[in-house]
Amino acid sequence: MSDAVRPIVWSGDHLRLLDQRELPARETWVECRSAADVAAAIHGMAVRGAPAIGISAAYGLALDALMGRDYDHAERVLAESRPTAVNLRWALDRMRRLPDHGASALLAEAQAIHVEDLQQNLLMGELGAALLPLKGARVLTHCNTGALATGGHGTALGVIRTAWQQGRIAQVYNTETRPWLQGARLTAWELMREGIPTKLIADGAAAHLMSREKIDWVIVGADRIAANGDTANKIGTYALAIAAKHHGAKFMVVAPSGTFDPSCPDGAHIPIEERTSIELTEYQGRALAPAGMQTWNPVFDVTPAALIDAIVSERGVSLPGEAVRG
Amino acid sequence: MSDAVRPIVWSGDHLRLLDQRELPARETWVECRSAADVAAAIHGMAVRGAPAIGISAAYGLALDALMGRDYDHAERVLAESRPTAVNLRWALDRMRRLPDHGASALLAEAQAIHVEDLQQNLLMGELGAALLPLKGARVLTHCNTGALATGGHGTALGVIRTAWQQGRIAQVYNTETRPWLQGARLTAWELMREGIPTKLIADGAAAHLMSREKIDWVIVGADRIAANGDTANKIGTYALAIAAKHHGAKFMVVAPSGTFDPSCPDGAHIPIEERTSIELTEYQGRALAPAGMQTWNPVFDVTPAALIDAIVSERGVSLPGEAVRG
Repeated sequence: MSDAVRPIVWSGDHLRLLDQRELPARETWVECRSAADVAAAIHGMAVRGAPAIGISAAYGLALDALMGRDYDHAERVLAESRPTAVNLRWALDRMRRLPDHGASALLAEAQAIHVEDLQQNLLMGELGAALLPLKGARVLTHCNTGALATGGHGTALGVIRTAWQQGRIAQVYNTETRPWLQGARLTAWELMREGIPTKLIADGAAAHLMSREKIDWVIVGADRIAANGDTANKIGTYALAIAAKHHGAKFMVVAPSGTFDPSCPDGAHIPIEERTSIELTEYQGRALAPAGMQTWNPVFDVTPAALIDAIVSERGVSLPGEAVRG
Repeated sequence: MSDAVRPIVWSGDHLRLLDQRELPARETWVECRSAADVAAAIHGMAVRGAPAIGISAAYGLALDALMGRDYDHAERVLAESRPTAVNLRWALDRMRRLPDHGASALLAEAQAIHVEDLQQNLLMGELGAALLPLKGARVLTHCNTGALATGGHGTALGVIRTAWQQGRIAQVYNTETRPWLQGARLTAWELMREGIPTKLIADGAAAHLMSREKIDWVIVGADRIAANGDTANKIGTYALAIAAKHHGAKFMVVAPSGTFDPSCPDGAHIPIEERTSIELTEYQGRALAPAGMQTWNPVFDVTPAALIDAIVSERGVSLPGEAVRG
């Protein structure tokens, strides 16, 4: 564990979230004192990343309980904040199953979810890193799946962190990940803090990269994994998977078991969130496109299981043709 | 011809270039009074698009001749302004072959190149549009290949313009085209001015789009086409071609014969320009990534001929397995 980044902090009677909209320019914090505050932070993407969303939502239930507010209402507000990440639903269901919905029981469970996520990430780091070459590995990652997106260490970026500590990594490439620039703003920031060599590329340059040099693994996270292994993740993931298959690069999905949705048979049943045009047409108030421009802004896509070479969860590694160990 | 956009204007004794760095926010013009001015405008991307670069360079030679400056020096300065677009070299070679290098002969030839480019685009528009369905066509384009990139009408966007006028088009999608946002800033602006229905998408969303609805044709321009049909074009083109092949969408390259480089046997021999990190790490002075971020910013890639279903030039349409009609 070399990462000192902790974006979710419980502070006695409220939750503090590192505002990821402001990184890397500024480290500011959002204070949440209710489930509604947490839901707004999730919808507004002050906190993002499927595991971090699940952890934050669990704390959100504890916050409303501390204030004596209605449990069902708090759960509903949180459930509606982002539709694609199943970790959110998973965390709410786990909290729902508690026999005691008192504030201290809810807080203890939220903290347990938080700590377990970190532990799972460290384990997934070991399992995923073991799939990489012993040295000289060249890997590509997409979006941000690091400490900022999780309880710590990260999922896909956790595999890269562990592999780096083991001396396996020669070069990381990270996409900028339009439209929200999680790669440029967040993954770049995390990797630079740890001195892991990375180069930022435009999303559209990944296929060209694979044609120019051998990329051993493309390593990504997930927002929801269907029973058949089809995986919803940040928009652009599917394009990387097609390009990886075309070039013979391996493709790894890294996600805790809370990301698996056995009730969802395949990718066609995963709801895909579409977000506002402004993410594509403006950056910090500056126009990127003409006023009134129509957009199509799905923020996730689905990678079919057939394009995935390994799915890593804390329960093990699923290889093609195997039942998914979620 | 419905487009009133003319980014290259000869004004008696100097050349005016619509500054494409400022669009769509502002329509400002760069005045060029020497070959060096034109070379700076090309390198700085006030003017961009392979055909527009060739036309501007031809005028640049005329400008220096008007001032009585050395021809060889002017040619060298212009030749070095951008390495990938072969139209630049083609235009300089055509000017070089003139028996008379006097100012009025050079100016007349530059104007001929300019007018011929427009005529070629109108012809390519007809040839390319004829490959589309008679109605209801759904097409995707990348970068900007419109009136802004050419002497008028456009290459790939010229095909879309003509097809729209013929009633063939139901919906256009245009990528934003990172890092320079030619799609978001320029193609969107051109299509909106003509009322052609288009939706802006992130580059990484194109594969997902193809998985969700039938895209009939992906239509792109070119900066250089090798003898075997391998095509250099804006970064991200190759990723679109792989995704198109994966989904059964057809892939069309539209470029005038000046883009063909018979001396270049295949894509491996095309020089790929890499540009400054700032294109990826800043937008109008605002940071998109941490300070000191390393990048890899190739601004073109190569699409192998095997992924291309039609190459359209003013000389005709080349289909797979045919000799390229450049």
